[in-house]
Amino acid sequence: MSNINLILKAREHGKNFIYETPILFNKKFNEIVGKNIFIKPECLQVTGSFKFRGAWCAISHLKKENKISNGVVAYSSGNHAQAVASASQTHGISSVIVMPKDAPKQKISNTLGYNAEVVFYDRYNEIREQIGENIAIEKNLTLIKPYDEHLVIAGQGTCGLEIIEQSKKLGLEKAEVLVCCGGGGLSAGISLALEKYAPYYKLRTCEPEFYDDTARSLKSGKREINETTYPSICDAILTPTPGEITFPILKRNAREGLVASETEVLQAMKLLYEHFKIVSEPGGAVAAAAAIFSKNKLKEKDIIVVVSGGNVDSEVFSKAISEN
Amino acid sequence: MSNINLILKAREHGKNFIYETPILFNKKFNEIVGKNIFIKPECLQVTGSFKFRGAWCAISHLKKENKISNGVVAYSSGNHAQAVASASQTHGISSVIVMPKDAPKQKISNTLGYNAEVVFYDRYNEIREQIGENIAIEKNLTLIKPYDEHLVIAGQGTCGLEIIEQSKKLGLEKAEVLVCCGGGGLSAGISLALEKYAPYYKLRTCEPEFYDDTARSLKSGKREINETTYPSICDAILTPTPGEITFPILKRNAREGLVASETEVLQAMKLLYEHFKIVSEPGGAVAAAAAIFSKNKLKEKDIIVVVSGGNVDSEVFSKAISEN
Repeated sequence: MSNINLILKAREHGKNFIYETPILFNKKFNEIVGKNIFIKPECLQVTGSFKFRGAWCAISHLKKENKISNGVVAYSSGNHAQAVASASQTHGISSVIVMPKDAPKQKISNTLGYNAEVVFYDRYNEIREQIGENIAIEKNLTLIKPYDEHLVIAGQGTCGLEIIEQSKKLGLEKAEVLVCCGGGGLSAGISLALEKYAPYYKLRTCEPEFYDDTARSLKSGKREINETTYPSICDAILTPTPGEITFPILKRNAREGLVASETEVLQAMKLLYEHFKIVSEPGGAVAAAAAIFSKNKLKEKDIIVVVSGGNVDSEVFSKAISEN
Repeated sequence: MSNINLILKAREHGKNFIYETPILFNKKFNEIVGKNIFIKPECLQVTGSFKFRGAWCAISHLKKENKISNGVVAYSSGNHAQAVASASQTHGISSVIVMPKDAPKQKISNTLGYNAEVVFYDRYNEIREQIGENIAIEKNLTLIKPYDEHLVIAGQGTCGLEIIEQSKKLGLEKAEVLVCCGGGGLSAGISLALEKYAPYYKLRTCEPEFYDDTARSLKSGKREINETTYPSICDAILTPTPGEITFPILKRNAREGLVASETEVLQAMKLLYEHFKIVSEPGGAVAAAAAIFSKNKLKEKDIIVVVSGGNVDSEVFSKAISEN
């Protein structure tokens, strides 16, 4: 079950392996936005995204309990891929990763660099869950799901524990915590930590335009599905519907969801580059974009923004920082 | 006098204002380099470089002692400029900054953004020290020198205190600490902290090709002068000779200096982007370049690399991450 005890255990497992990422803030950036913005740069996390937290937690937990006999398998657009591959490598476990063939080049090459076997699929005509489950059965591998998995959610929750400790040190009493949201693993994990230790901090999910399934689901109260196949640069967080496990947690803990357009995301990447000297990928900058461009929807003056990843091809990053 | 007590006092003054930047490391990057590399990303520091440490320390110290009657003046290629402007603004003090007219656009616009008055000069035909001193007398302003100033060196030394605490937590017993070096303020400050608390950590200055005055001075034992006017992308650390105050400290504490070429610096910026998701400027990536490309000159297996700044125009950064 996803709960605070599992998160505390995840933190124990992650000690010395998962980074405690800092919280960054910048007077000038606050003037531009008109809010006090506190950036949690998970792009600095091992493998360049928060995903390492969940992957590490799941694999170290399962290994300890002897539940991995013959390696692991995962499906992912690229960040969970790198995280599972790297965590497996450190644990001396082999990994097979199912990735879309149009995933960013950097994500593919990094995943291969962690000695994973990569199986490509066509994201418009094939179902990755099916491919992953088939491989798990065929090769007797343990499947590490990207978000709808208690151990993975617990790992992402360690980011929430850090947010609470760090922002309380900074004197924040009330705050909104803006989190980039695909399947909802990071949002759900963080929200569980807030629910327990910082009930006055409120979580807001942030999604790319046309992929606002969580925002619509939070509004309707049931899991809505994106019908679009509209392409998006936010490859990291394009999921069809909120998770079965993650959604009830978010329904209990999250305020109204926020949405950002591609132009807003590119502008946010540029501002994060200019003011914080961090590299964010489009899907990782959605919460920052929402903080900047939907600030009239924010209810608090102190806003914590999770920049969830930074694995971006140089052409896309150069475009973001040069234009606008 | 530059000594450890002044550094400890600087830390007190900087509390809640100067960031404790993290230490980042990455298994894959270590495989590429063939050493254990620990990155201290001072590009994440307030105003995008370590310079904020020294500027904050000097201004808060002088203000406390009522030694600033009518504002401050500084000369700088851009990082000390932003740091002095920002620290002054927070202290409610006005600032005049003397900058080369060909400084990076981002550095100029940021300095103006902190409400500084900027005075431009021609770096090939005018002497900035003279302009700064004249303005100080004319307008009755307190001059904050960029490196040859005890309070500034003490502020930069706070970076050394963090390096020692953080790397000891990581279990490092012996290490070489590679620091980008212009006038030597950061190197001297860090070396004073190492001398006191970590005598087995050895400092190495890192300079751009053709601007290796410190390396040559360490070899000859006296302050050598660069005769070149060869242009360099490493604008942040182009100084004619080591400081009068900084050099004796470095002579006592530093091992043989390292040098990196422009091509190596650009490649280092790309690797820092890919593996650590941080934005470095050319002058800020010189130590990383030396760690990667002069590794046969390194004597230890654990190498701490200070990435000293990240204020870089987007055209230069795009070039660095796209090419090579």
